[in-house]
Amino acid sequence: YKVARETGMSRRVNTVMQTCFFALSGVLPKDEAIAAIKQAIRKSYGKRGETVVQQNFAAVDQALAHLYEVHVPALATSHTLLRTPVAPAAPGFVQEVTAMMIAGRGDELPVSAMPPGGTFPLGTAQWEKRNLALEIPVWDPERCIQCGKCVLVCPHAAIREKVYPTPALEGAPETFKSAPARWRAFAGDLYTLQTAPEDCTGCALCFEACPVVSKSDPARRAINLAPQPPLRESESANFDFFLQLPEVDRTKLNLSLVKDSQLCQPLFEFSGACSGCGETPYLKLLTQLFGDHVVIANATGCSSIFGGNLPTTPWAHNRDGRGPAWANSLFEDNAEFGLGFRLSIDHQAAYARDLLARLRSELDDALVDGLLGAGQATDAGIQAQRARVRELKAALQRSDLPVARELLSVADALVKRSVWLVGGDGWAYDIGYGGLDHVLASGANVNVLVLDTEVYSNTGGQMSKATPRGAVTRFAAGGKALPKKDLALLAMTYGHIYVARVAMGANDSQTIRTFLEAEAYDGPSLIIAYAHCIEHGLDLRLGLGQQKNAVASGYWPLFRYNPALAQQGKNPFTLDSKAPSIPLAQYAYAEDRYKMLVQRDRAEAGRLMELAQRDVENRWRQYQDLAQFFAATSHANGKADGKLAP
Amino acid sequence: YKVARETGMSRRVNTVMQTCFFALSGVLPKDEAIAAIKQAIRKSYGKRGETVVQQNFAAVDQALAHLYEVHVPALATSHTLLRTPVAPAAPGFVQEVTAMMIAGRGDELPVSAMPPGGTFPLGTAQWEKRNLALEIPVWDPERCIQCGKCVLVCPHAAIREKVYPTPALEGAPETFKSAPARWRAFAGDLYTLQTAPEDCTGCALCFEACPVVSKSDPARRAINLAPQPPLRESESANFDFFLQLPEVDRTKLNLSLVKDSQLCQPLFEFSGACSGCGETPYLKLLTQLFGDHVVIANATGCSSIFGGNLPTTPWAHNRDGRGPAWANSLFEDNAEFGLGFRLSIDHQAAYARDLLARLRSELDDALVDGLLGAGQATDAGIQAQRARVRELKAALQRSDLPVARELLSVADALVKRSVWLVGGDGWAYDIGYGGLDHVLASGANVNVLVLDTEVYSNTGGQMSKATPRGAVTRFAAGGKALPKKDLALLAMTYGHIYVARVAMGANDSQTIRTFLEAEAYDGPSLIIAYAHCIEHGLDLRLGLGQQKNAVASGYWPLFRYNPALAQQGKNPFTLDSKAPSIPLAQYAYAEDRYKMLVQRDRAEAGRLMELAQRDVENRWRQYQDLAQFFAATSHANGKADGKLAP
Repeated sequence: YKVARETGMSRRVNTVMQTCFFALSGVLPKDEAIAAIKQAIRKSYGKRGETVVQQNFAAVDQALAHLYEVHVPALATSHTLLRTPVAPAAPGFVQEVTAMMIAGRGDELPVSAMPPGGTFPLGTAQWEKRNLALEIPVWDPERCIQCGKCVLVCPHAAIREKVYPTPALEGAPETFKSAPARWRAFAGDLYTLQTAPEDCTGCALCFEACPVVSKSDPARRAINLAPQPPLRESESANFDFFLQLPEVDRTKLNLSLVKDSQLCQPLFEFSGACSGCGETPYLKLLTQLFGDHVVIANATGCSSIFGGNLPTTPWAHNRDGRGPAWANSLFEDNAEFGLGFRLSIDHQAAYARDLLARLRSELDDALVDGLLGAGQATDAGIQAQRARVRELKAALQRSDLPVARELLSVADALVKRSVWLVGGDGWAYDIGYGGLDHVLASGANVNVLVLDTEVYSNTGGQMSKATPRGAVTRFAAGGKALPKKDLALLAMTYGHIYVARVAMGANDSQTIRTFLEAEAYDGPSLIIAYAHCIEHGLDLRLGLGQQKNAVASGYWPLFRYNPALAQQGKNPFTLDSKAPSIPLAQYAYAEDRYKMLVQRDRAEAGRLMELAQRDVENRWRQYQDLAQFFAATSHANGKADGKLAP
Repeated sequence: YKVARETGMSRRVNTVMQTCFFALSGVLPKDEAIAAIKQAIRKSYGKRGETVVQQNFAAVDQALAHLYEVHVPALATSHTLLRTPVAPAAPGFVQEVTAMMIAGRGDELPVSAMPPGGTFPLGTAQWEKRNLALEIPVWDPERCIQCGKCVLVCPHAAIREKVYPTPALEGAPETFKSAPARWRAFAGDLYTLQTAPEDCTGCALCFEACPVVSKSDPARRAINLAPQPPLRESESANFDFFLQLPEVDRTKLNLSLVKDSQLCQPLFEFSGACSGCGETPYLKLLTQLFGDHVVIANATGCSSIFGGNLPTTPWAHNRDGRGPAWANSLFEDNAEFGLGFRLSIDHQAAYARDLLARLRSELDDALVDGLLGAGQATDAGIQAQRARVRELKAALQRSDLPVARELLSVADALVKRSVWLVGGDGWAYDIGYGGLDHVLASGANVNVLVLDTEVYSNTGGQMSKATPRGAVTRFAAGGKALPKKDLALLAMTYGHIYVARVAMGANDSQTIRTFLEAEAYDGPSLIIAYAHCIEHGLDLRLGLGQQKNAVASGYWPLFRYNPALAQQGKNPFTLDSKAPSIPLAQYAYAEDRYKMLVQRDRAEAGRLMELAQRDVENRWRQYQDLAQFFAATSHANGKADGKLAP
């Protein structure tokens, strides 16, 4: 790692390790091996430019220069025991099944150890301590303004915040830090920002997101990176203590604020996604906002892999056992799969309401009215309905009527459940688009989150219809000739679909507002989320800044189209970003996917960049025109639209 | 038929025939049977309104009143022979295979009688004389202005026009009519408009399309309907004579004129589509314009059934043996299927050009240059290239080089071939939309013709995403709640796709111009064609007028979006129809699909019609805004776009 860092390779040690292997193994004569490595470097990285080649060459030379022998004693003298695959505190299933798979002994498991129906318990990624980070964030309580931005962007839910009453601090480990909470609603309480040291991957997005830059030392912020090993033990204990602190009272929060939203427990944690992943923060946010009543259909792709990567899953549940119900069907049918969730949930709810009406004479009138008339738009509303359902179930338990037994089996359906369809651009723009269009057109109340990396990320970077003009990908080795498909505009042509484009790194408040509006809209919603990705050829640590530039260049205009506003005679369309202020090239040439073409064919790269710049300008004019058009015509449509009943 | 006509049932004889059957068969006591029939009528047609019920009741009563006995002699005395399944002039395959199937004896055919590979010969529907028409059009040469509109709209290619030199008239049957040709290019020639009496289905669209209304008798036009039986024999002879007249010299035509385009031989004739079908005139036009070099991928649906309805096919060839190559794969993959045609044709052409370059030293330089540099945008250009390919083949035949043999096998690929993807709205809006989107987005040079009946016509009228708000269909028994998907707008969001909406009955010139522009555009084209349909609950004779009203109400705005113009810095968007001038209800309530809902639920019908009217107004505003937007911004884009190379 030291050699890699000093030769400009950052954290990429593959060249260093390869050199060591050939220098020591004797597979080839050393000089011949080194020459072959350098030849391979030129072949693999030549198109990325001479700088990259020279960095790799330097890594080879410096690896050889730093190679030294480690003497292994004949007898082990250490008293450190080999770690068990999972901690002793893990639940039975994790100990008996998951741990066996983690240890690479899954083949020894009998079929009977597998959960019937293939349903796996949630929240198991927490047991798979990977200890990947060389450096982890360390909180500076004095400097911190408690904005929550670092918590929001963390791809692994490995940095968290809580407010809690002072007495809860009792029994805290010695190094556990806290500060007075900066919330009016929690005046007098304490606040802690805590890292999960063994789950953090060291991507540094939290540091990059921190808005508090030290005046005396611009390299320091309110969280700073420090080597993990010396902190591992103490911070692990601190994190354990942090976890057992009480969760926040959600009814006191204003969820549209980043600061408040990040006090909510994430129910998506410690995924196996790439360090610095641009997709996972959106999923985590989804669980913070709606996690205890959400059902998720996940298209095949990165998110289905890191979402259900046997033996563990990052999808988790809260202390009440509530969390997202998650499943992955296929690549091509995810929208239909999720629509099925919606239809069956609605059907169960309708059946429960029907049975409830039939049982009215047997039950308390106020309870029945409460259950049937419940407003569940807020957390408080949902909590109240859950309390009523508990009361109902207790009453039903006392009845022998068959109808009561039947209602007991579906009573939970009286509590709101949201359906989210999640997937990448390969699904939404390409392989699943026919079905997605059908589901959106149906008018059904489902929410769609597209994690747009603009390429088939999980299969190694093939072009999708979301790939931008001029980017080099597999199947577009000469740079994509045609512009990116405008999925948002396509969806907006329907008029009855909530449509938004977001980029958390550019405008986190707009992202959160969008999630809340999509959830609230009683019809189909589509959120297209910019997700930086290793396939872009970018140091992911710079992902948030790159998202800012995507928006500043006009490449990724932020907006929301809310049909609910049109139904009230208001302008449904809001452009949330400003006119382009930097050239597209400034954004694009920070990424290898664009730079590669300059290396290979400067003239063609220039031609495509000029066209891409024109795409941006045309798109911006079009969106501006849309904004004006909707502003001018929205008054004419001030009536309830013909929505399909659920 | 007389009873049906006189009781207002038009040509629908089912009620009359049913009554006769029960009156005679003795299956039930007559009075009981009649009561049951009337009850069934009320049940079946009640929702269409009391008028329809009373018409059917009258048909029952009048059928009984007109029932009389026909005495069948003990011995046959007629000398008329039973017609053979096909005429003796039919070619061998039709005699040996097709005729057997027509006669209902297909099971007797050995497998060896089937064409290897499943490829069937073209132009076989002509042998299946169906003699469906009670009345056929009769031409009035004096009154006719030779506009060609009747020829254009004929769904069965059963009325045709030709210009020819006077000497060609020699040997004409006595009743064969002609008039001086009204074309400057054909001054001194003769003109004939001829009906195919045994292929005509009597739909009367030709009569409805005729613009020449007699001043003395408004019921008479330049073509008029007359009973078929007395005319059958003489007009059959006339049609045979007409067919052998020379075909027009296409290089003298201005194909953008209806008048000229209809002089071209249709290569789609006598299909088994419904009498008065709104789809087939578009297909016929396609073959008149491009038939000798077109390859068609046909999605499953009405057009695949009437297009490849064993034992015969309406797809035909000209005297040179050239005609559309046609195939139907599946419902869902037609766009991909057609893209495959394009890719393989382009690949063959590139291979042929490559071989040609390698053989240059063996061939005449001027010939090679001509072949490689051929402009094939016009009929003349294609004809010239065909002549060059003939010359090339002759030269190659004289060579023993393996490369020459190889080129011989692909030389035909040097002649232009156009690829058209054809299907209904069930394919394009729903089941095949994902693939259609992908193919359009690819930038490949294919042309897509959507025959939009706004419903799954062939399977009996299920809702598609093309179904308009308020229409009653299967799966939308309460009237469709959401508006029609705007496929044209969706496609236009890409920018590089030629997109047009046409309605032949409203503006035939615009339809023809659109076909020519789509064919000329070197990229994907999408034409969405309004097709009236029996599923609309409309007397198809009124189909053309209904198309006019669809446009006049603003429900079906006509427009063309041509990216080729944008590339030249011109405005790519042309609105070809005027602002709405009649209320939507005036158009819609001419059709049972809308009227049915009024009958069933007047309030809901009113609500949906109000919303649908608003849809129309919003759509119109949106298209107007688009027109203004493109007019204002097109100057900024005056450069060649980044089209994908073929």
